[in-house]
Amino acid sequence: MDKAQQDALKKAAGIEAAKLVENGMIAGLGTGSTVKFLVDELGRRVKEEGLQFTGVTTSRRTQAQAESYGIKIVDIDDVDHIDVTIDGADEVDKDFNGIKGGGAALLWEKIVATNSDRIVWIVDESKVVDTIGKFPLPVEVIPFGAGHVIKKFEAKGYKPVLRLDADGKEVRTDENNYVVDLHLEKIEHPFDLAEDLINTVGVVEHGLFLNMVDKVIVGDPNGPRVLTNGNK
Amino acid sequence: MDKAQQDALKKAAGIEAAKLVENGMIAGLGTGSTVKFLVDELGRRVKEEGLQFTGVTTSRRTQAQAESYGIKIVDIDDVDHIDVTIDGADEVDKDFNGIKGGGAALLWEKIVATNSDRIVWIVDESKVVDTIGKFPLPVEVIPFGAGHVIKKFEAKGYKPVLRLDADGKEVRTDENNYVVDLHLEKIEHPFDLAEDLINTVGVVEHGLFLNMVDKVIVGDPNGPRVLTNGNK
Repeated sequence: MDKAQQDALKKAAGIEAAKLVENGMIAGLGTGSTVKFLVDELGRRVKEEGLQFTGVTTSRRTQAQAESYGIKIVDIDDVDHIDVTIDGADEVDKDFNGIKGGGAALLWEKIVATNSDRIVWIVDESKVVDTIGKFPLPVEVIPFGAGHVIKKFEAKGYKPVLRLDADGKEVRTDENNYVVDLHLEKIEHPFDLAEDLINTVGVVEHGLFLNMVDKVIVGDPNGPRVLTNGNK
Repeated sequence: MDKAQQDALKKAAGIEAAKLVENGMIAGLGTGSTVKFLVDELGRRVKEEGLQFTGVTTSRRTQAQAESYGIKIVDIDDVDHIDVTIDGADEVDKDFNGIKGGGAALLWEKIVATNSDRIVWIVDESKVVDTIGKFPLPVEVIPFGAGHVIKKFEAKGYKPVLRLDADGKEVRTDENNYVVDLHLEKIEHPFDLAEDLINTVGVVEHGLFLNMVDKVIVGDPNGPRVLTNGNK
């Protein structure tokens, strides 16, 4: 599948998910290439259909895009709940365990997700996998002492790589932290790994989103497919 | 006990602890009113006795004080280990479980502590308690969504209070996060509480330092007492 085909599937998933946002709702808007199509479609509905809703965003990027369409964006602490959050994912397995954070926005994404009544992910079919882990697992790490955290990950066989930008400088998250990507290939026990990571001093958050999502909308050449999580 | 007496005990503990720093060592230097006396004494030894050691600090405050004495301070990622870290504590019980973070430096303090071969706390006797929790437990929280974290703490009966400065503005840590103090009075199950806090999305770190310390030097009117942790 080439990029144009993949983009078409992402776009179809984004358009399908936009239908979940109704007048008067508070909607969480994720980050990433698929969410970009979602926000485009929401912007179209605001302009052409007079849709009115309030958005909470998970990154400064998404906020800027949404506001360019006149979508009202508020701070997460200015709402008492979020009706539905629509976000992308880098991988998701049949147990609805996923990896997020390829776009370095995992911390705000997880904060928004945990305050949402419903969570919907939109992905193209390449993201649906048997076992998560081929996509490098992002971990947000405090810069102070990050070298020691990386050494501990190395000793555990987690194959950590500090994420750098095109100029070879450390990527900084919206919270000014580093991102360390773990090249695990296969994560057989995601809950155990999550427990180990969150208890590592210096780790702020990790990209394992385990059994959090309610629905996954998969862009498919035959039209979007919806996977519903019955165990949440 | 009045403040002058308490300061005298703190100072005695700090002077006693300074003896643990030997030529050529890498020493972690904590934060707080007792550590201030430690750094004063180390500065005196550098000047008068020619003591040479390298320091790693847990706050910008301590770094500034140490450097004013000509103590060489390096970044934690520039050393491969720390021989001994000397820090204060807000409370410590007989099982060597403690609360730290009154000075809002708990995150860097915990990072330095977890990379130290030995950990020594210096306290005046008022800090040694039967059950920790009377001192409000500091929790470092990401500002994004902090209001929701506080609501969750309230629902659990943790009696959270967002720490404000004299002007009524949120206190910011060295990592630019908020501090939420939990007014628990008695923490009967500190390990369970630690597990709950670290798994709360939005929490970066908390002030429970459980069975981490090797030795506690207690300022006592009869001279410093040393408590040694046999279970670490």
